[in-house]
Amino acid sequence: MAGGANDTRGVPERLLSLLDAFDREGAGELSLADLVARTGLARSTAHRLAGELVAWGGLERTADGGYQLGRKLWRLGSRNTAVRTLRQVAHPFLEDLLELTRQNVQLAVLDRLAALYLERLTTRDSLVVLADVGRRLPLHATGVGLVLLAHGPGTLLEEVIAASPRRFLPGTMTGGAELRTRLAEIRRLGIAVTRDEMTAGAASAAAPVRDAGGAVVAAVSIIVPSAAPMDPRYELAVRLAAAGISRGLGWRPRASNDGPDRADVDRASH
Amino acid sequence: MAGGANDTRGVPERLLSLLDAFDREGAGELSLADLVARTGLARSTAHRLAGELVAWGGLERTADGGYQLGRKLWRLGSRNTAVRTLRQVAHPFLEDLLELTRQNVQLAVLDRLAALYLERLTTRDSLVVLADVGRRLPLHATGVGLVLLAHGPGTLLEEVIAASPRRFLPGTMTGGAELRTRLAEIRRLGIAVTRDEMTAGAASAAAPVRDAGGAVVAAVSIIVPSAAPMDPRYELAVRLAAAGISRGLGWRPRASNDGPDRADVDRASH
Repeated sequence: MAGGANDTRGVPERLLSLLDAFDREGAGELSLADLVARTGLARSTAHRLAGELVAWGGLERTADGGYQLGRKLWRLGSRNTAVRTLRQVAHPFLEDLLELTRQNVQLAVLDRLAALYLERLTTRDSLVVLADVGRRLPLHATGVGLVLLAHGPGTLLEEVIAASPRRFLPGTMTGGAELRTRLAEIRRLGIAVTRDEMTAGAASAAAPVRDAGGAVVAAVSIIVPSAAPMDPRYELAVRLAAAGISRGLGWRPRASNDGPDRADVDRASH
Repeated sequence: MAGGANDTRGVPERLLSLLDAFDREGAGELSLADLVARTGLARSTAHRLAGELVAWGGLERTADGGYQLGRKLWRLGSRNTAVRTLRQVAHPFLEDLLELTRQNVQLAVLDRLAALYLERLTTRDSLVVLADVGRRLPLHATGVGLVLLAHGPGTLLEEVIAASPRRFLPGTMTGGAELRTRLAEIRRLGIAVTRDEMTAGAASAAAPVRDAGGAVVAAVSIIVPSAAPMDPRYELAVRLAAAGISRGLGWRPRASNDGPDRADVDRASH
């Protein structure tokens, strides 16, 4: 958009578009010119509305006159009950999974057409490191994404296909029919395994996390080198972590109506 | 406020007041009536603007027709560079501190007139648990708060006093003169120790975290029972954790101009 003259958006939409300007990787700090370019707002409007967001705390001024997202958003965001509960319940299981496998472990939830990392633990010099929290990944090309897609709303796959999923690597699956078959298998097995589909050299195993009502609310996974076949113990460890988190959320195998997944988890826990 | 007739607030302020309605403990889910009561907006305005926030993702509808903060806020909040860097750098040091002391450990930053927990680790059944992330605590009555107050902007203490700090317990310090003396001592010693000032039975030791430029950007602390005197090893452990996080942020003792604190940290690391 060139400017404000033909802009039919209301004030709320214009205001919130300024926050959306930061909603992508590498947009940590933006100048007023960046904001104008990303929102299509007139410069004076962008300046005035950014000032409102600064006064509120949703944006902060940077040392060199730009803008960044404010810690008030972080504070408000941390009050999202579902996210807070999931992270708290999951943390010890993710730590154990990391300790056991020494591979990257992550917890993700569905966020519109993407998988959003709530937590990612990795090791660096044998220290546990939080990484990439808040990052979004495609559903069709990642282990956690495929699990969330397999258990998501009925129309989700159509929406993903309609958005022309990207073929990151030769092994990336982008066709509706092949994805449909694969998602049915993921539901049947209770686990998703990927290999060289988004990142060359990386394989993953991901399992669903259920709430007390049996609904899949998250996915847990580990990322391992794809050079060797997936160690079956890794799959077991991921299943157990997912089952442990699910139990922490109040899920009980007997209360679940999801036959195949339940059977898999039960088998895995022997 | 009774309604919208005499409301002189602009649209941005009204819109953002809906998010502020959730910015307190126990406000996980609010009905439209709650929102009207907390914002002073006319019912129709509250309904329309809440709808804008739902469309944007900042609010989500709940199963029983209410509203809660959306995970988009969490995602945007997690992009705040300062918070993200601090949490990533601090996490391993907090884990080690917990492991060593088996006491609650926390990392907090200044958030207007309060200390905001970025991270809090505790143990339950020997599992590491994330707790109270996003909680705000008073500056004058907590270890992390006193550290942040001692190193905050020059006018901060006046603002805290002007806001009539609450006397939680007989030992809570609320007077300007006594707090001024205490803050000078905290700057001199490089550590704050509290005892029965906000919570009966709890003592804390807190130390400042510095960035590459030497500015205090956070405080790290442990909470221990107040029945016994503070174990000097706990103080040492907190100082070392704070120094380790500071180094991770690029701080170097020799580059710092803060004589007394530097001397303390140096002494603590022998």
